Amino acid sequence: MNIRIDEIGFGGMKLLQDTEAFCYGVDSVLAADMCSVKHSDRVLDLCCGNGVITLIVCAVYSPEHVTGLEILKDAVGLAKQSAQLNGLSDKTDFICGDAAQIEEYVKAASFDAVVCNPPYFERGRGVSCDASVKDSARHESSAGLEDFFRAAAYALRAGGSFYLVHRPQRLADIMECARKTGLEPKLLRMVCPHEGDAPNLFLLKCVKGGGTELKVLPSLAVRNRDGSFTEEIDRIYRRK
Amino acid sequence: MNIRIDEIGFGGMKLLQDTEAFCYGVDSVLAADMCSVKHSDRVLDLCCGNGVITLIVCAVYSPEHVTGLEILKDAVGLAKQSAQLNGLSDKTDFICGDAAQIEEYVKAASFDAVVCNPPYFERGRGVSCDASVKDSARHESSAGLEDFFRAAAYALRAGGSFYLVHRPQRLADIMECARKTGLEPKLLRMVCPHEGDAPNLFLLKCVKGGGTELKVLPSLAVRNRDGSFTEEIDRIYRRK
Repeated sequence: MNIRIDEIGFGGMKLLQDTEAFCYGVDSVLAADMCSVKHSDRVLDLCCGNGVITLIVCAVYSPEHVTGLEILKDAVGLAKQSAQLNGLSDKTDFICGDAAQIEEYVKAASFDAVVCNPPYFERGRGVSCDASVKDSARHESSAGLEDFFRAAAYALRAGGSFYLVHRPQRLADIMECARKTGLEPKLLRMVCPHEGDAPNLFLLKCVKGGGTELKVLPSLAVRNRDGSFTEEIDRIYRRK
Repeated sequence: MNIRIDEIGFGGMKLLQDTEAFCYGVDSVLAADMCSVKHSDRVLDLCCGNGVITLIVCAVYSPEHVTGLEILKDAVGLAKQSAQLNGLSDKTDFICGDAAQIEEYVKAASFDAVVCNPPYFERGRGVSCDASVKDSARHESSAGLEDFFRAAAYALRAGGSFYLVHRPQRLADIMECARKTGLEPKLLRMVCPHEGDAPNLFLLKCVKGGGTELKVLPSLAVRNRDGSFTEEIDRIYRRK
């Protein structure tokens, strides 16, 4: 491990990261920003990794409580230390466990919102990777896409929201999982590296038991042609 | 009826339209343009209306044959007259019938490509409309979304392509129908009124029995901020 403390914005939030493992990217920040969470809400961060989404959700929305679930033990350790460093130990807890066995860790229908930035690649797909920790953060291992949807559907109260960031390649799989698990897709936003590019990410909000009608928002561009962040990304990183 | 002959581009193509019924829009043109059709291909235009997509597909791709299927009798009459006017009677035929009863009209697996610009609104949804002909072109009546997918899956050979234009609101329904009927979503393109707007249409290509991986293309903007068509739309209208 090679631990580094990064200042990640959001009013001076500090994050411990293992530079030999998986470091957070703009996808985590966008997933956290997309959440619409009230002060009284209990939130589950599924596949929480080093806890970056949990921390940002705490900073931006100050919800009642955020629980992070992550299969990688070292990442859970870092998440706990980061929460302490930011004075958020009382507001958060982190569980080391497999999303496919969610029933062992949390009560059914006990969360108002679930946010998930899962591994993007199916077993046997995507760029292969020597470091097994990085691999686990990038590839579905024990749990797959449908397990994450099942876990979210189990953990959410009726009418609760599921926020997911993923790759466009899997959109059809994701719509299918959503319908199968009763998490109705309600909001979709494509994310492009630059305006006019093909999207390389999307953000999806589903509602447990929601009515069928999807709203597709204007695409979000991450960078201007000169490489600087767009106004909207700047606004997101400066939120507190 | 109040019949008008319009020149619609594509090398002087003429189209008979009933101005009291449903006149074609940019969605039909984009659906036709999205098709990737070879000279040897047999094409089915599902819900062909007054035949505008059939005519454009003939003009742009010159396929072996295009069959149009449409439930509105008057529209079928206009489609036949338009085909004649453009010297395309030998290359086309138009059937008055219900997509939900496709087996009565065409043979299974007899088409290389199916294109469909269906009614956008579910029964009981969307803007209500006094004129019953307009209503039938806008609202699903006897046949619904899943019927159109079933009809396409029936008519297509293995590996054949299904091209659909529809509204973003129904994207989850459409992904679900696609998976149910074995028409795998392969290409998706959002269409926006202007760059940076939320999309109000999308184009989808599915492949019968295709592998699971969706490619999402850059969004297509129809108009510039000054109201003129974008370069890409101009290019599409000038194709021949």
